[in-house]
Amino acid sequence: MLINNPAINSFIPPQRTLMGPGPSDVPQRILDAMQRPTIGHLDPAFQEMMEEIKVLMRYAYQTENPLTFPVSAPGSAGMEMCFVNLVEPGDKVIVCVNGVFGGRMLENVKRCGGVPVVVEDEWGKPVTVTKVEQAFADNPDVKVLAFVHAETSTGAQSDAASLAKLAHQHGAVTIMDCVTSLGGTPVLIDEWGIDAAYSGSQKCLSCTPGLSPVTFSERAIAKVKARKTPVQSWFLDLNLVLGYWQAEGKRTYHHTAPINPLYALHEALVILSEEGLENAWARHRTMHEKLKAGLEGMDMKFVVEESARLPQLNSVWVPEGADDAAARAKLLGEFNLEIGAGLGALAGKVWRIGLMGHSAKQENIDFCLKAIRSVLHK
Amino acid sequence: MLINNPAINSFIPPQRTLMGPGPSDVPQRILDAMQRPTIGHLDPAFQEMMEEIKVLMRYAYQTENPLTFPVSAPGSAGMEMCFVNLVEPGDKVIVCVNGVFGGRMLENVKRCGGVPVVVEDEWGKPVTVTKVEQAFADNPDVKVLAFVHAETSTGAQSDAASLAKLAHQHGAVTIMDCVTSLGGTPVLIDEWGIDAAYSGSQKCLSCTPGLSPVTFSERAIAKVKARKTPVQSWFLDLNLVLGYWQAEGKRTYHHTAPINPLYALHEALVILSEEGLENAWARHRTMHEKLKAGLEGMDMKFVVEESARLPQLNSVWVPEGADDAAARAKLLGEFNLEIGAGLGALAGKVWRIGLMGHSAKQENIDFCLKAIRSVLHK
Repeated sequence: MLINNPAINSFIPPQRTLMGPGPSDVPQRILDAMQRPTIGHLDPAFQEMMEEIKVLMRYAYQTENPLTFPVSAPGSAGMEMCFVNLVEPGDKVIVCVNGVFGGRMLENVKRCGGVPVVVEDEWGKPVTVTKVEQAFADNPDVKVLAFVHAETSTGAQSDAASLAKLAHQHGAVTIMDCVTSLGGTPVLIDEWGIDAAYSGSQKCLSCTPGLSPVTFSERAIAKVKARKTPVQSWFLDLNLVLGYWQAEGKRTYHHTAPINPLYALHEALVILSEEGLENAWARHRTMHEKLKAGLEGMDMKFVVEESARLPQLNSVWVPEGADDAAARAKLLGEFNLEIGAGLGALAGKVWRIGLMGHSAKQENIDFCLKAIRSVLHK
Repeated sequence: MLINNPAINSFIPPQRTLMGPGPSDVPQRILDAMQRPTIGHLDPAFQEMMEEIKVLMRYAYQTENPLTFPVSAPGSAGMEMCFVNLVEPGDKVIVCVNGVFGGRMLENVKRCGGVPVVVEDEWGKPVTVTKVEQAFADNPDVKVLAFVHAETSTGAQSDAASLAKLAHQHGAVTIMDCVTSLGGTPVLIDEWGIDAAYSGSQKCLSCTPGLSPVTFSERAIAKVKARKTPVQSWFLDLNLVLGYWQAEGKRTYHHTAPINPLYALHEALVILSEEGLENAWARHRTMHEKLKAGLEGMDMKFVVEESARLPQLNSVWVPEGADDAAARAKLLGEFNLEIGAGLGALAGKVWRIGLMGHSAKQENIDFCLKAIRSVLHK
């Protein structure tokens, strides 16, 4: 006797305008790419596309790193790939925590058996470079520096170039989270000297969620190859993933790649390359200025000081007298508009309005400001 | 000075017929579902769909397990989720190895600090139940039994019910790989008493690759909750994933779910439920008989003895005189037909012809037999 089959119909999602911290609006071109015919993960045509994705990702990351590819899972798995490969049990790791994602890095370090040296900053502030300098001075045996370039939980951007320089002066490799920055503000892997970085497909690349673009420098690979212990994850072991993504001759099967999502990522990167990185950065900046003017016109205050503010993620304090959850529910229910709630220490206190990728356009700003005005009765 | 943007165009994949070991042919309904508008991972509409996916997966797995959901990554990550949560350092684990994927289980046990007791069988044979019985007798302190129900590398099916019964008699929990069986031949989680199982979206469910349906019994959850050490993976830690997939009240953000691929999985499961599991199993069986008649008509020999043969994965010895790689290249190049090569110990020696999900139909069989006849000049 089998359990009965449930009478469930196809799912037809509503059409939303996505102005939260990601996913962002996905252009039709990318959705169209996603539904092209599935082919095999070892098909020669697919392998050519993999090579193109690597070239396009090197452009997005501004790097010559050969080992630049998408992890077959969301950004959190990209983060974990960096840590499980680069942190060996006993390694001392400086972890900068100024929001949720720095905290998640710390959790990763612990689970890899690393010895964390935590540099804390207030949520909403960038990482203080002098504090990291002091941490290096106090701990000359640090092997890895980990920090978040663009804190998705607060909208603060840190000075990646200065942080990476410190790491290099002290012989440490750097792990950088650029989930929210890639494609929205400059991410210059080679110029800054970043050794390992991970991002997400669903932020400023405007692709569907589920993939994590990563890049590793030669120094990073050397550290992985010199490990005395095996990488604790089989799925995320760079030595194995390399055989599929980085094979010179014949590729070796490691896992079945997510074929159609990779079509979508390819298309998202083609779109970015067509627009040009500098134009994309300028667009995010311009749109931010317009949104900012509108929000400040309603007396809303930004969480992050101007110098460290990410144009693509606008955190503002929930206006006095407004009911956070009720207002967001109204935006979603009446306007089909998603904006982000606060996370962790900022839950209930802030709204995070995303202007990421395809969402960073005049039409979205006008619509968003109108909707917020209506909900707040401004 | 930025690195120049590469001049790369949109990728248009060829239209293949997929008769390898997965991905299988994806029905247009599933591709259509995949390109529906992206919404947020905390959107109430999305959360309703998540609940429906869980109900549909319970039907596919024939289980009442509340904790039944898709991992946001391919089957290898589903495998790793089972091992990192259920195997604690020092735990003795019987691992049955009769092909590539049993070997991968063994690798997982080692990386979790488990103490493996390996039960080996020849590739192409099912797991020998009496050997497992002996392994339990020799090792009364075994905590976990791990085996592959349907070995994707060989096409052999093992007696899951008897193996699970042994485990229960000896107080061990079971981890079962049913990547290739789910939806193709009976997988009866509750009736057999399986504690943890993982599968893949791209086999008999005919969905696009990239997701791993998993299910955990109350006994499995109790073992996870009783752990003395934290789970080594943050991304795959069931305690955390539960907060998103299994929350009674408010869901907690863990990672950004792969929205559009989950639309596709939902649709794949709706299609399976519409057909009915018993009908799907019967169809795989009928189509296998037809393919078998055609292949044997060309004097091709099956690798696996009839009693343990999976209908959905037909492993045959590469015919004498045929050039394995050249023949497969011709099938792909001239007929747009993908069949699978041998893996591991069987590389170069066998072909794996898949009849999985939507690929298990008369039209594919006729086409495949015609193409093989042409290539082999039969």
